[in-house]
Amino acid sequence: GIRFLSKKCQERFALIGELLNQEQLDIALLQELWCEKDFQFLKQKLSTFYPYAHLFKRQDGADESFCKFTNALVLSGFIGSGLAVFSRYRIHDAFLYQYSLNGYPYMVQHGDWFGGKAVGKVSLNIGGLNVYVFVTHLHAEYCREKDQYLPHRVVQAWELQQFIRHTSAGADVVLLAGDLNMHPEDLGFRLLRLSTGLQDSFSQTSSFSGCEGGFTLLSENPFTHPEDLTAFGGGIRIDYIMFKGSQEVDISCESLSTTEGSVPYSDHEALTAHFLFRTKEKGNGCSREESSCVSEDLPELINTVNEARTEVKVGLHCSERMRYTAARTGIMGLVLLVLELAIAAVPLFALGAEQPFPKASFYLLGALCFAVLFSTVMLYIFYSMEVKALQEAEDQMRLVVSGLQEQLKECTKAQSSDQS
Amino acid sequence: GIRFLSKKCQERFALIGELLNQEQLDIALLQELWCEKDFQFLKQKLSTFYPYAHLFKRQDGADESFCKFTNALVLSGFIGSGLAVFSRYRIHDAFLYQYSLNGYPYMVQHGDWFGGKAVGKVSLNIGGLNVYVFVTHLHAEYCREKDQYLPHRVVQAWELQQFIRHTSAGADVVLLAGDLNMHPEDLGFRLLRLSTGLQDSFSQTSSFSGCEGGFTLLSENPFTHPEDLTAFGGGIRIDYIMFKGSQEVDISCESLSTTEGSVPYSDHEALTAHFLFRTKEKGNGCSREESSCVSEDLPELINTVNEARTEVKVGLHCSERMRYTAARTGIMGLVLLVLELAIAAVPLFALGAEQPFPKASFYLLGALCFAVLFSTVMLYIFYSMEVKALQEAEDQMRLVVSGLQEQLKECTKAQSSDQS
Repeated sequence: GIRFLSKKCQERFALIGELLNQEQLDIALLQELWCEKDFQFLKQKLSTFYPYAHLFKRQDGADESFCKFTNALVLSGFIGSGLAVFSRYRIHDAFLYQYSLNGYPYMVQHGDWFGGKAVGKVSLNIGGLNVYVFVTHLHAEYCREKDQYLPHRVVQAWELQQFIRHTSAGADVVLLAGDLNMHPEDLGFRLLRLSTGLQDSFSQTSSFSGCEGGFTLLSENPFTHPEDLTAFGGGIRIDYIMFKGSQEVDISCESLSTTEGSVPYSDHEALTAHFLFRTKEKGNGCSREESSCVSEDLPELINTVNEARTEVKVGLHCSERMRYTAARTGIMGLVLLVLELAIAAVPLFALGAEQPFPKASFYLLGALCFAVLFSTVMLYIFYSMEVKALQEAEDQMRLVVSGLQEQLKECTKAQSSDQS
Repeated sequence: GIRFLSKKCQERFALIGELLNQEQLDIALLQELWCEKDFQFLKQKLSTFYPYAHLFKRQDGADESFCKFTNALVLSGFIGSGLAVFSRYRIHDAFLYQYSLNGYPYMVQHGDWFGGKAVGKVSLNIGGLNVYVFVTHLHAEYCREKDQYLPHRVVQAWELQQFIRHTSAGADVVLLAGDLNMHPEDLGFRLLRLSTGLQDSFSQTSSFSGCEGGFTLLSENPFTHPEDLTAFGGGIRIDYIMFKGSQEVDISCESLSTTEGSVPYSDHEALTAHFLFRTKEKGNGCSREESSCVSEDLPELINTVNEARTEVKVGLHCSERMRYTAARTGIMGLVLLVLELAIAAVPLFALGAEQPFPKASFYLLGALCFAVLFSTVMLYIFYSMEVKALQEAEDQMRLVVSGLQEQLKECTKAQSSDQS
């Protein structure tokens, strides 16, 4: 919902509010709720059934007046994470992690860079259980065949799984929902699924109703471009609700449903899942979460992380090349500037020369040199940041892979000693 | 260690390498290791006793050549987190969180903004125990009486404790070390200590050797400015090693020592702590980490979080005012520009006027208007980001306080029902 830019923004928020009040859910997770004013509107509208709410604000935030102003100016960005949680249960704690990579600032038409993508976590207590709920929105995919953002999305998926893994050790139940902008077979989604152990509610539920194939971006929806989706059979599934239990709690997805493009809430279809929590009997006593030997999954996980590492390396190579190009162009601009200054110095030494000095073109060329220098320096800094972010992700992946391989080795050893 | 800017940079890294090899520690945590080249130098030098190493790279990173280049240009920043870990034990996993606020970019002389402050986490396995080690570096304090960075440091302390609390649920032992830039009685440090349960090794150890009062910034050190420290009795304690056990493991600090300013390693004194881990007997069976009623600490924690909230609100008020000033100045620049254009338009309509048009001053004024407009727009965006970050921190604090108050109420109820 970007005011003035998005179509029928306020009507849609009113519709969303009505839908949520009608459904009376336990938790509602929204993305792309950019303006604080719209959040306050929903908060008030939903206060009866969803008394607790949190909008993840940071960063690149804008207050309401700025929001109106910039949106009007198509400077839609600087507008926070856009992630919001409405809940029937008290929100005990909230935490936000911002992804280190999120597109390119100069790709203004794609606009992802301006909308600070992030993952938010809230802690709830539902019937004595620690329930950690994550909500996120990953970088959009604009062209599947030649996806220049693939390394960015893979790094985001990596950081998402790192955040979930590192922050959900104390949870009885983990839920994740959001617009992942990845197809179910995509590298980033496999990475997320395998490394966190989160299950996809669409593939796990016994009762599904809604669009064929669980599509959440549908050609029937009035806000989508049907021509983008014909190649995929009229729809794609890129929004997910994922879940995981723990050693104490079993969780199962009782039902999953999607809206079907008829009511114009959003360009994406809404997903609704019902879960059943069951406390496990404490039969096997005090089992601390040891590095359990699920060796059938380990090799697949190692392969997936290695695949992601390769993708990140490709991205690294690419952005190093871009940085090199920026540096080269910058040096050319500098040389041109020095030449200009030399030309300007000539009349000083050769006083009384006849030719008139070409002032206009001189200033124009000078301004051009400065523009080239400034933009290449900015690009160089930006690509340097990108290189470091990719390197950090690759380093982390290397550590995790070597740890997993160690674990696999021990498992195989343990199994073979069991057999002998 | 900033090359060219810092004094005797390479000699100091060589000295640090020798010291660490001599001590043969289990884990060494460094801050302000800005250049990858220096990290590689140390990694090789320490490879015998510290075979595992990780440098937290992201963001604002720079490769080696850029590092040299920018350092020479006093653009020292864009140079990563500066946090590094050297370890005798395999590093299984690494994760980085970047603070949302870190000074002001226009305070170039303080330079904190350029050095992307962050907290890094590594997971180690020491004798079968999950040991999580955190290393961080908070924003420096330049003037204690009128500390304009106080809200930034409080938000950093808040985010640090959030990161530690959220990511250390699965740990047997938690260690935190770093330059916190806070005195022991400071709000941020109390917040960190109370909310995470981490203990300060200086106050907990039975055997301390080194500077009086545990000082880590000392007037005797050749790299400090003694005049800054005379007000504090010749030194301050702003670097810490903190620790926490778990329900399974007891941890105690056997000894703590500091260097004493004689060998010129760094402007801060090095801290060395020895810890003893003891696995607890599993007497009380399978005790899940329930919200234990430590009601004697709860009121203090609530007070501290409220104090931090007040501080953040003051900062919020301040940065909203700054943003307002930026907007007002920007509008003045805009009005001036419009006036200029009107003046420029006059000769077009009044052709044949006698007075010569004052070209030079016209262009000068125009350039000034543009400069004012550009800088105020940048400042406005920057302050908007600051406001959002402060708001998010305040929102999180509000959630946590209300959760804690709920907990306190239940505790009091439980206690009174016990008594009756």
